[in-house]
Amino acid sequence: MPRDSLIPTETVIALDSVPIRFGLGASQELGYELNRLGVRRALLVADRNLRQFGLVEKLERIVRDAGVELDVYDDVHVEPTDRSINEAIAYARKTQPEAFISLGGGSTIDTAKAMNLFSTHPGELIDYINKPIGQGKPVPGPLKPHIALPTTSGTGSETTAVIVLDLLQLKVKTGISHRYIRPTLAIIDPLNTLSCPPMVTACAGFDVLCHAIESYTARPYNVRPAVENPAERPIYIGSNPISDLWCRQAIEWCARYLRRAVFNPLDLEARSYMALASTFAGIGFGNSGVHIPHAMSYPVAGMVRDYFPPDYDVDEPLVPHGLSVIINAPAAFRFTAPAWPERHAEVAAILGVETRGMPVREAADALADAIKQLMRDLGIPNGLEELGYSERDLPGLVEGTLKQQRILVGSPRPVGEKELGEIFRAAMRYW
Amino acid sequence: MPRDSLIPTETVIALDSVPIRFGLGASQELGYELNRLGVRRALLVADRNLRQFGLVEKLERIVRDAGVELDVYDDVHVEPTDRSINEAIAYARKTQPEAFISLGGGSTIDTAKAMNLFSTHPGELIDYINKPIGQGKPVPGPLKPHIALPTTSGTGSETTAVIVLDLLQLKVKTGISHRYIRPTLAIIDPLNTLSCPPMVTACAGFDVLCHAIESYTARPYNVRPAVENPAERPIYIGSNPISDLWCRQAIEWCARYLRRAVFNPLDLEARSYMALASTFAGIGFGNSGVHIPHAMSYPVAGMVRDYFPPDYDVDEPLVPHGLSVIINAPAAFRFTAPAWPERHAEVAAILGVETRGMPVREAADALADAIKQLMRDLGIPNGLEELGYSERDLPGLVEGTLKQQRILVGSPRPVGEKELGEIFRAAMRYW
Ligand SMILES: NC(=O)c1ccc[n+]([C@@H]2O[C@H](COP(=O)([O-])OP(=O)(O)OC[C@H]3O[C@@H](n4cnc5c(N)ncnc54)[C@H](O)[C@@H]3O)[C@@H](O)[C@H]2O)c1
Ligand SMILES: NC(=O)c1ccc[n+]([C@@H]2O[C@H](COP(=O)([O-])OP(=O)(O)OC[C@H]3O[C@@H](n4cnc5c(N)ncnc54)[C@H](O)[C@@H]3O)[C@@H](O)[C@H]2O)c1
Repeated sequence: MPRDSLIPTETVIALDSVPIRFGLGASQELGYELNRLGVRRALLVADRNLRQFGLVEKLERIVRDAGVELDVYDDVHVEPTDRSINEAIAYARKTQPEAFISLGGGSTIDTAKAMNLFSTHPGELIDYINKPIGQGKPVPGPLKPHIALPTTSGTGSETTAVIVLDLLQLKVKTGISHRYIRPTLAIIDPLNTLSCPPMVTACAGFDVLCHAIESYTARPYNVRPAVENPAERPIYIGSNPISDLWCRQAIEWCARYLRRAVFNPLDLEARSYMALASTFAGIGFGNSGVHIPHAMSYPVAGMVRDYFPPDYDVDEPLVPHGLSVIINAPAAFRFTAPAWPERHAEVAAILGVETRGMPVREAADALADAIKQLMRDLGIPNGLEELGYSERDLPGLVEGTLKQQRILVGSPRPVGEKELGEIFRAAMRYW
Repeated sequence: MPRDSLIPTETVIALDSVPIRFGLGASQELGYELNRLGVRRALLVADRNLRQFGLVEKLERIVRDAGVELDVYDDVHVEPTDRSINEAIAYARKTQPEAFISLGGGSTIDTAKAMNLFSTHPGELIDYINKPIGQGKPVPGPLKPHIALPTTSGTGSETTAVIVLDLLQLKVKTGISHRYIRPTLAIIDPLNTLSCPPMVTACAGFDVLCHAIESYTARPYNVRPAVENPAERPIYIGSNPISDLWCRQAIEWCARYLRRAVFNPLDLEARSYMALASTFAGIGFGNSGVHIPHAMSYPVAGMVRDYFPPDYDVDEPLVPHGLSVIINAPAAFRFTAPAWPERHAEVAAILGVETRGMPVREAADALADAIKQLMRDLGIPNGLEELGYSERDLPGLVEGTLKQQRILVGSPRPVGEKELGEIFRAAMRYW
C-alpha cells in the first residue's frame, strides 16, 4: 500500500498486563490460584540460594496443601546463559509439567519463561532470539500457565514479555520477546524479599530506577510511523500517558525507599514499596521500553573479566544486571537530557534536586548528579574502571551496544557509534 | 478456624485488568485481534443510535474485511432493564456466536456482557444478581471472547467485572459482578466519542469523576479483616496504592478536559484524555470500589417519575446514570470529608480550589463546592428537586440506598438510615 507523502505517525497505545496479587503474605494465594486454573501437576522453578531462608520449602508446602503434585527444579544460573537455559529446557521437555511456578529474581523467572516456551512449542533458542542475533520468530501460540513470585525488587520480569540470556560463545546478552511470554499471574509478596542482601537490594533497586527513568524519558510512542498491521507494532512502543503513570510513581518510591531498603533490610515499609515499584516499573518499561543505559548494559555484563560483586553467591565473574545498567546511567542521561529537558528535570526533582528557580536545562543536567549521589550513598563502584574496564575496551563496548538497535531506538536523542564512545568514556570514572 | 483476638487485617491487593488498545483510530485493530483470537463468527452488539453517525457501519466493515462472519444485534436499551437484557440473552442463546463485540456506552457493553454470560452458562438473571437481591452465584467458568469498544467516556465498563441493570418490577437498579465478566480486550478509540452530545458527555464525564473520587476516598483495603480464602475477597477491595494511581490521574484529566469536551465536542485532545480518564477510572474503581454517591444513584435512577434529560434519545423518563450519581456527590462528599480530610482536600485542589494556607478540614469541605461549580458550569440540574423528587420521596430513596450494602461498605465513614436521610435532604437543592 503506497503511503501518503505525510507519514502517518502512530496513534495507538497497546497495553497488556499481568494480573497481580500484591502484599505481605500474598504467596499464600498460590494454592487457590493453582486450583482455580485447574492445575494438578506443577513445576516449581526456584533459586537454590533461597533454600537457606526457607522460601522454597514455604512454597512447596503451599502448593502441596492445595493438593497439587509438585516437582522442583532449582538449577537456576544467576543471570542465565544459553547453556543453563538449554539444560533447564531439556528438563521441562522431559517432564512436561502442566504449569510453571517461579520463585526467585529475574534469573529464575526468565528461566521458567524459557522452560515454558520451549516445552510448549518446538524449536531452538536461536529461532526465537531477537533479530539480528537470532531469527526473531513469533511465538506460535499461548503457553502453559506460569505464576511468577519475584524475590528481588528489580527486574519486573513477573510482568514482562521478555527473557534475557547470555550467549556464552558470542559473549553477548540478548533476549526473546513476545506477548505470550508474559506470566499468567504475578504474586508479589514483599516478605519474599526480606532476605535480599544489601548489594542485591541496591543493584536490583537501581534496575527498577533505570527501568522507570528510561521508560519515562523514552522517545514517545507517537513520533514513530504508524504500523500498517498491529502485528508489526514493536513490543516496546515508546513513552506514553499510561506507562508514564506507572514509571513516575516507581521513581517516587525509589527516591523515598531504596536507601531505606538497602540500609535496613527488615524495613518492611521500604521493602513493600520497593516491591510495588519494581512491578510498576516492569509494567511501565515492559510497555514503553528502555533505552541507552540498558542497551549499554549488555556488553558491560557480557564482557566481564574479573569483577566479583559483594553479596552475590557466584563462582564466575559477574557484573549484576542492575549494576551494569546504573553504571552507565549518569553519562547516558547527561547525553539525553537536552532531548527532553522537562522530563529529565522532573525526574531530578523527584530524586531530591531543588530545581525551583533553576533553568530547565540546568535542572535536566542535574539528574546525572542526583543518580551519582544515590550510587555513592549505596556503595556502587564509581564507574566502569572499577568493574575492570579501560580505554582499550571502548571499541568492544560500543560494538556490543550497537547490536542492541531494538533498544537504542527508544533513545529520545539519536545515538550512534561516536556518541556511544563518548558516553562510555564519560562512564569510566564518576568521582 | 478460630481467629486470634487481634483480627488480622487484609494485606493483599488483587488487580485484574483488561488488555487495552487506546488511541485515535484504534478501532481498526479489531480485525487483527479477532483473527488473533481465532474468531470466525462474531456478534456485534451495538447501540442503534450510533448508526446515524456511521459508527456501526464502520465496525461492520472492519470485521468483514478481516474475513469474520458478522451478525448484528442493535436492540440495546439505554440503561438496560431485566426485560431488555432477557430479550438480548434469548437472542444470544439462539444464535450462539463464538465471540462478542460491543460498540456503545455502558448500556451496550453491559448488555453484551450479559449475553456472553448467559449464552455460555445456564441460569436466570436472578441466580447471578448480587445478594441480597439475587443469589450472587459465582460465574462457573470463563466466558467467550468479548471485545468492548466504548463510545462514551463514562462508565469504564470496558474494563470492569460488572453488569448494571434495572429490575422493573422491584424498581431497583442492581448488578452482577464476577471477574469472568471482564471483557477480553478493550479498544478505546476517542474518535468513537466525538458524536456524543453535550449532556451525554457531561453525564458520562461526571460518572468518570465520581468513579475516581469515590474510589480515591474509599475505605482502604487494609482496614477490613483479611479473607480466609481468596475466593471470599470482595470484587471491590477498597482504596489502595494501585487504584489510587489510576484514580488521581483520572481526576486530573477530568479537571482539565471535561469542560472542554462538553463545550467543544470536536476538541480531539479533550476527547482523548476524557476517554483515557474513563478507562483509568474504570480500572481504578473496578478494583477499589465506589461508595455513597453511587449507592444513592441506584434509587435516584430507579424511582424516576417524569424527568426527560436533554440530548438523550429515550421514550421513557430517565435519570441518566452519571446524573443520578453527581446529583448526590456534593452532599455525600461533604459527609465523608471529615473521615479522610487529606484525600478530600487533595481532590479539591486538583479540581482547582486554592487550598494553600487553608486548614485541611476546610479544604476537604471545599471539595463539595468545587463539584457544585463544575455542575453549574455544565448545566446540570441544581439538585434532586429538579429531577422531580421531594421530601416525601426521602424514605424510598433511603430504603433503596440501604439495599446497596455491597457498595456502602466502601464509604470511609459509616453510614446508616439517619445519615442517608440527611445526605439526601442536603442534595435536594444546591443553589
Ligand atoms: N525479563 C525481564 O523483563 C528482565 C528485566 C530486567 C532484567 N532481567 C534479567 O534478570 C536477571 C537479574 O535478576 P535479579 O536482579 O532479580 O537477580 P537474580 O535473580 O540474578 O538474583 C541475584 C542474586 O540474589 C539472590 N537472591 C534473589 N532473591 C533473594 C532473596 N529473597 N534473598 C536472598 N537472596 C536472593 C540470588 O540467589 C542471586 O545470588 C538478569 O539476568 C537480567 O538480565 C530480566
Ligand atoms: N458495568 C459497569 O462497570 C458500569 C459502570 C457505570 C455505569 N454503568 C451503566 O452504564 C449505563 C450508562 O452508560 P453510558 O453513560 O455510557 O451511556 P449509555 O450507553 O446509556 O448511552 C447514553 C446515550 O448516549 C448515546 N450515545 C452513546 N455513545 C454515543 C456517541 N458516540 N455518539 C452519540 N450518542 C451516543 C446513546 O445512544 C444513549 O442515548 C448505565 O446503565 C449504568 O448503570 C455500568
